[in-house]
Amino acid sequence: MHTISADMRACIDECLRCYQSCLGTAMTHCLEQGGRHVEPAHVRLMMACAEICRTSAHFMLIGTDHHRHTCAECSEICDQCAKSCDALDGMEDCAATCRRCAEACRKMAA
Amino acid sequence: MHTISADMRACIDECLRCYQSCLGTAMTHCLEQGGRHVEPAHVRLMMACAEICRTSAHFMLIGTDHHRHTCAECSEICDQCAKSCDALDGMEDCAATCRRCAEACRKMAA
Amino acid sequence: MHTISADMRACIDECLRCYQSCLGTAMTHCLEQGGRHVEPAHVRLMMACAEICRTSAHFMLIGTDHHRHTCAECSEICDQCAKSCDALDGMEDCAATCRRCAEACRKMAA
Amino acid sequence: MHTISADMRACIDECLRCYQSCLGTAMTHCLEQGGRHVEPAHVRLMMACAEICRTSAHFMLIGTDHHRHTCAECSEICDQCAKSCDALDGMEDCAATCRRCAEACRKMAA
Repeated sequence: MHTISADMRACIDECLRCYQSCLGTAMTHCLEQGGRHVEPAHVRLMMACAEICRTSAHFMLIGTDHHRHTCAECSEICDQCAKSCDALDGMEDCAATCRRCAEACRKMAA
Repeated sequence: MHTISADMRACIDECLRCYQSCLGTAMTHCLEQGGRHVEPAHVRLMMACAEICRTSAHFMLIGTDHHRHTCAECSEICDQCAKSCDALDGMEDCAATCRRCAEACRKMAA
Repeated sequence: MHTISADMRACIDECLRCYQSCLGTAMTHCLEQGGRHVEPAHVRLMMACAEICRTSAHFMLIGTDHHRHTCAECSEICDQCAKSCDALDGMEDCAATCRRCAEACRKMAA
Repeated sequence: MHTISADMRACIDECLRCYQSCLGTAMTHCLEQGGRHVEPAHVRLMMACAEICRTSAHFMLIGTDHHRHTCAECSEICDQCAKSCDALDGMEDCAATCRRCAEACRKMAA
């Protein structure tokens, strides 16, 4: 029977946390701050990060080995998104969440 | 056997067109224009519209009768989104796409 | 500034838990058991429940008032899905998760 | 200004067609046929294909360069899904749709 390992369970949790952080922060903090917080490159990265996190969690829940590839991509986007957050006020939590997700996804991709 | 009627097929098409229009326009035209185009209420409505369109199409493809309720909600959000687009430059196409989707969804919700 | 209440935060958590339970259980336990576990009506309900939970969480994270309507629909589908799970072996956890999500969504819809 | 090339537009269309075909066929034809049509490996592949198609379209609409990586992954999964469909009755259309999407995604990934 298909079972989900402890590492995969932890990775699903990080992905869904990062999805929530990126979508929620983009749609509240970033839109309300305006200015550099709504520069196209930043908002697109936040939305792409939210989406790949959602998809990577989905793949692990489906139980397909292709999760390795979505997790690899997820870790790259999360790292980029964390850097983009570093450059802006009030996004420390989002950056930290992205980095935890990147780390968990790197393990699953290996 | 489960079959998809011509009306439902047309509604799925409109939902996926509206999803593309709202997400694509928000992430390109709105972010690049800035100003009123990135006001929180407008961007949230565009993103909510994209998501409910995606979900309504998903429900019709799954073949669940609950599509009536997601289509009813979709038609409401599409109508609101069209009005929000009316007030901004360069969003005539997106407004028209929202209105066609609202109309198709109203039929499916009936 | 837009803030997320404790009740809404709890509802987002329940929605994402129920999404994981329905998708994960359908794709592992149900597919592996076969028989009544893969009857069209049951699998469709599980997949519809996963999707509306994902969408309701998404709406609350976006910060749109339309979450009331998706949460209302979510609570209905979760209740139906719980009943469908009750009739099958080994789905007690999924049924309980659906019921907790239905309860949290009913509060948000009110 | 960000614009969508004709090739990318065509790829988005193929991705959304393949998403519809895989989700719709899995939830109707496969569930109704039963037997080998609901073997875990086949259904998981159909659902993973539907999801990565949806995600690749989403990335192209967002306007992020990371679409290259999701499109590369999408072309691989579509090819596998097409082969899985080849082995089953009544899935010629779904297999053909998967192969067209794989081809369009390969171009975008290059």
